[in-house]
Amino acid sequence: MKEVTLKQIAENLGISITTVSKALKDYPDVSKKTKALVKKEAKKLHYTPNVFAVNLRTKQSKTVGLIIPEVVHHFFSSVINGIIEQAEKKGYLVIILQSNESYKLEKKQIELLISKRVDGIMISLANSTVDISHLLEVKNLQIPLVMFDKISKLVDCSKVIIDDRQAAYLATKHLIDSGCKRIAHFRGALLPQNSIDRFLGYKKALEDHGIEYDSTLVYICEKVNYEEGREAAEQLLKDHNDVDGIFCITDLVAVGAIAVFNERGIKVPDDISIMGFSNWFVSSAITPSLSTVDQPGYEMGKTTFKMLFKEMKAKKKEEPFSAMTKVLDTAVIHRNSTR
Amino acid sequence: MKEVTLKQIAENLGISITTVSKALKDYPDVSKKTKALVKKEAKKLHYTPNVFAVNLRTKQSKTVGLIIPEVVHHFFSSVINGIIEQAEKKGYLVIILQSNESYKLEKKQIELLISKRVDGIMISLANSTVDISHLLEVKNLQIPLVMFDKISKLVDCSKVIIDDRQAAYLATKHLIDSGCKRIAHFRGALLPQNSIDRFLGYKKALEDHGIEYDSTLVYICEKVNYEEGREAAEQLLKDHNDVDGIFCITDLVAVGAIAVFNERGIKVPDDISIMGFSNWFVSSAITPSLSTVDQPGYEMGKTTFKMLFKEMKAKKKEEPFSAMTKVLDTAVIHRNSTR
Repeated sequence: MKEVTLKQIAENLGISITTVSKALKDYPDVSKKTKALVKKEAKKLHYTPNVFAVNLRTKQSKTVGLIIPEVVHHFFSSVINGIIEQAEKKGYLVIILQSNESYKLEKKQIELLISKRVDGIMISLANSTVDISHLLEVKNLQIPLVMFDKISKLVDCSKVIIDDRQAAYLATKHLIDSGCKRIAHFRGALLPQNSIDRFLGYKKALEDHGIEYDSTLVYICEKVNYEEGREAAEQLLKDHNDVDGIFCITDLVAVGAIAVFNERGIKVPDDISIMGFSNWFVSSAITPSLSTVDQPGYEMGKTTFKMLFKEMKAKKKEEPFSAMTKVLDTAVIHRNSTR
Repeated sequence: MKEVTLKQIAENLGISITTVSKALKDYPDVSKKTKALVKKEAKKLHYTPNVFAVNLRTKQSKTVGLIIPEVVHHFFSSVINGIIEQAEKKGYLVIILQSNESYKLEKKQIELLISKRVDGIMISLANSTVDISHLLEVKNLQIPLVMFDKISKLVDCSKVIIDDRQAAYLATKHLIDSGCKRIAHFRGALLPQNSIDRFLGYKKALEDHGIEYDSTLVYICEKVNYEEGREAAEQLLKDHNDVDGIFCITDLVAVGAIAVFNERGIKVPDDISIMGFSNWFVSSAITPSLSTVDQPGYEMGKTTFKMLFKEMKAKKKEEPFSAMTKVLDTAVIHRNSTR
């Protein structure tokens, strides 16, 4: 396509480029008649203002970057939904990159977003991210940054999280209150903060209610998926015959466990109670429906963009900005997989 | 943040701007020593080349736009996954917009992407889109365009689809082959092509196998979601007591129907067989596991970007390009919800 320029419109109409430019921007010193003529010609030629040129002047790309571990994931896709809806309201476009839980990819993607000069970056860390120098670089360059869900406490930036430890504590307490005495935990990998916090919440709830913590009841689901939920349930059936409750790190793992128990004729919740985490909409559709913790993904996305917007606005106005951490509410949801 | 320029690097090192520019681009007429010095200084000052300036020269944004009806949706999130993985391999970033099945929003988003001068656009149409002038405008501007899944036959551009009619025919035939004689269809809205094609495939399969088509057995699920699957199943139980099979437009609708039958003690597949469509991973996790049609979302995303890339490359080289339609394979998957 041949690029249509202001010059061309000016030549076609026999007026100056300055007049064309002013007419398109509705300057008061151009007559209504000229404005109408210019706009008609611009439309005819399919003229669109060159946003990259505009950007050189305003130093704003009106584009933000989002790095997320996994796109095909109910919680994260709810977050994406909240972010792009809120961004669009404010006239921002969102570039979405998927780290696939890889630190190496995440680092490369941060560099890519920096080189693209996005106005701000939102990120939920990959499970394998330990080194945070790429994030400190974002801070150094004074690019607005918000972390959500999987965060690092070592980076001084705005954060949107839930209180994973407290939520896991209440989920485990729900199992205890319903009569469970020997409670297993299907946890996530060892590194991510939310996996650690949910484990600590589980452990603390046992301790506070006089139930001895037994490390052999903790199973690791490295990838936190359906298949691992099945595997952990099958291993648990081999290892222990006295477990009467399981707190799973996510609904997906819990759904895998329930499928195994259903197949083996083990009754949920009569023989064993299952508690999930995240309130994936499928959890109310399975049999029995899953008790879980509601984790507000859409809300988290909305809040994440709102905080980024605040920081971008402050930067534009050269006003001071202090990072803050927003903790969103969760709630235990009692369905049919617990008594 | 103060913008670091080539000028600053040049001043700090006491050399010319041209030398700095050449050094950063690895021109052979600059000494290795100078290159090393320039690169070290550039790194120290956090210099990044201004991509918007680069864009003015190359006329490429290396950014593509994707408009999708719904992000929180297993099939579409698989498509997104395929697209962003493939785009990243080729050095492209993807701006994702969600039309929420609204024609008005979709039209606005097309205009936004045009004004952002993306190098290409990928789109799956909203259910409410009838007017296609916004897409013809994309063609007019010679912006590479690929449609996938929900397409319009009236737009002459590359397309990636499955043969919905044939897939639905085989899904219905599977129910007939397993012994079903009175088969209902939970269809989608009246407008979208894939909803029409799946209905026509269902109807043709009945006719080809000597089963009379009965329009009272067709239920419309406008939003194609879990809740509507439940409602249609409940309505069906009120209207008919002789139906022994249902072909559902998607797994989500089928999962809703199965939940209702499970709750009412109606045995699937002994009393009624259920066939889904899409092979959402949850469909193997529910009880009974769902027979369905495998619809390759990830593959569709990969192919969509590949076709867009081909067109963008042809455009850059000013080579001719003819649009083509790629039809991806589907397969009937027999699980426990059909006999």
